[in-house]
Amino acid sequence: MSPNETKCRIIIDAMGGDYIPQNPLLGAVDALKENPSLDIYLIGDEKKIAAVQKEKNLEFDLSRIIHTSEVIDMHDSPTNAIKKKKDSSIVKGATLVREKKADAFVSAGNTGAMMAASTLIMGRIKGFGRPTIGAQFPTNNNKVCTVYDVGASVDSKPMHLLEYAIMGTIYAQEMDGIKNPTVGLLSVGEEETKGNSVTFEAHEMLKQSKINFIGNVEGRDILAGKTDIVVCDGFVGNIMLKFGESFISFMKGRIKNYATKGFTNKIKALITKGVLKDSLSDMDYQSHGGVPLLGVNGISIIGHGSSSPLAIKNMILKANEMFEKKLLTKLEEGKKIYGNI
Amino acid sequence: MSPNETKCRIIIDAMGGDYIPQNPLLGAVDALKENPSLDIYLIGDEKKIAAVQKEKNLEFDLSRIIHTSEVIDMHDSPTNAIKKKKDSSIVKGATLVREKKADAFVSAGNTGAMMAASTLIMGRIKGFGRPTIGAQFPTNNNKVCTVYDVGASVDSKPMHLLEYAIMGTIYAQEMDGIKNPTVGLLSVGEEETKGNSVTFEAHEMLKQSKINFIGNVEGRDILAGKTDIVVCDGFVGNIMLKFGESFISFMKGRIKNYATKGFTNKIKALITKGVLKDSLSDMDYQSHGGVPLLGVNGISIIGHGSSSPLAIKNMILKANEMFEKKLLTKLEEGKKIYGNI
Repeated sequence: MSPNETKCRIIIDAMGGDYIPQNPLLGAVDALKENPSLDIYLIGDEKKIAAVQKEKNLEFDLSRIIHTSEVIDMHDSPTNAIKKKKDSSIVKGATLVREKKADAFVSAGNTGAMMAASTLIMGRIKGFGRPTIGAQFPTNNNKVCTVYDVGASVDSKPMHLLEYAIMGTIYAQEMDGIKNPTVGLLSVGEEETKGNSVTFEAHEMLKQSKINFIGNVEGRDILAGKTDIVVCDGFVGNIMLKFGESFISFMKGRIKNYATKGFTNKIKALITKGVLKDSLSDMDYQSHGGVPLLGVNGISIIGHGSSSPLAIKNMILKANEMFEKKLLTKLEEGKKIYGNI
Repeated sequence: MSPNETKCRIIIDAMGGDYIPQNPLLGAVDALKENPSLDIYLIGDEKKIAAVQKEKNLEFDLSRIIHTSEVIDMHDSPTNAIKKKKDSSIVKGATLVREKKADAFVSAGNTGAMMAASTLIMGRIKGFGRPTIGAQFPTNNNKVCTVYDVGASVDSKPMHLLEYAIMGTIYAQEMDGIKNPTVGLLSVGEEETKGNSVTFEAHEMLKQSKINFIGNVEGRDILAGKTDIVVCDGFVGNIMLKFGESFISFMKGRIKNYATKGFTNKIKALITKGVLKDSLSDMDYQSHGGVPLLGVNGISIIGHGSSSPLAIKNMILKANEMFEKKLLTKLEEGKKIYGNI
């Protein structure tokens, strides 16, 4: 890789995800079709990547493969794997970003390992104690509500919640084009007096900051679209996210069961599935692609294990956009602008 | 009221809920129709209750009204209201249970006030540091998963999570007829090493107890029906519960919007609503009635503000069942049986 200050040098983990290396390779090829000027590299087992490239006759420059000999799989313990598998795609990808030989690292591999490698190897942006991951929820008013944190950190301190709010605000402004986004603090009641020991203190800090803070919000306010951003501890956010995701499969299961009870039911169930697919189309994870780990000193995008080529492509494009919009610099500046409490 | 050791003396809050006093009165009348031997009292403004009784020509013995002159409404701050409104139905109802002049108190009024009054006035059962409220979620395998706590306590300590597990186990055995119910600890991963500072310690305590503990469960495992009981801090449980409830209204909103786009859509949306109503019928809150506040030294059942007469009736019948099954005694014994860690 050559030093390049104007173009984002993006490394894609070819060994991360359920369908490797084909999905990362296909995603990279599709991203290049959409934007031929992208500066893309694949990291992983070069023989395996080359074999798929040949087999599928894909247009990808093999000199853009960075070989690694080890693989961190889904069953590896994150911190152990990072210590021991130094020549894995995840460790080497993060290291290249740290060494400023690349700007962004994109992976659909072991989420915990990717978070740990990004945090420990790339380091954190000055002023941010903990990295965070946001999840975007669709809302009743056809907007989006992004919840930070949904799993990067647990036992967040009040100061961390303020930092999530700052990162979320800057991301929403720069990447989603939302002017002066609103931030709510997730709690068990709207009143300032409702909450736990962490939210009481965080509430005060948010009130005194320059964030567009609207106060406490409840679990029901997310889908209701009451605010652009919601901040909470990663323990709470992760449980809520997984609970929400399971609602869809729960409903599918119930409708499937309904369909077994006679021919009329079968037809009705089919119609229902169509209506729900149409009405809830913005809950489609594929089109979202992965999510950035904010607060680390480099662009790190984490994808779902089952990421399709489309998801990988969107992750690459997102990394590129974050670079072009100078998000890391803006986050560092943002701590000073919003956080001087 | 006369002392009565074999019959449950149940006080119903006639001033609690959105439709008062008619819904509590109607619920009481319906409960008596179903079980004429019930020992029921209404507490609240006797003139208002008598007026509705007369207007609707209901069979309810007016001598069974306990008059109170004050009302704690939805906007009152719970702890303040309890201190200041001594002659309110909630304070007096809880006091009568404390004084052993009644066995159970049922209210669809201010939830916070009801929780505070029950806890502070009735006191706690020996061995239980915090009361808890469970919410029942339907599951994919057509069972029920009860989550404790969903809002009675925040900042729960590890020992409290063990206590919720004990109370949940006894309630499931006695009231739902589940033998040896399984308990999962809500966390951000199934592995013992995933969680926060509270779950790490609670995990150990649960493992060493005599609870049928299956380990950590995730947000997605609740609706998947992986376990009979899930324990978590009330802050987490409350947020998840409200988030889950909002999913239904979110979907309704989306389907309604879908229906506006042409005649075919309107028909399809109607069919969808029917299918969902049929498939998700066990999510109907009315039939569940209210939820008991477990761990307090008396039977305390808390209902939703919008409780229908059916919901109130079910709350009364539940209170009676808890009394007949000697639940309070069994909880006290349960701490010794399950908790000797």
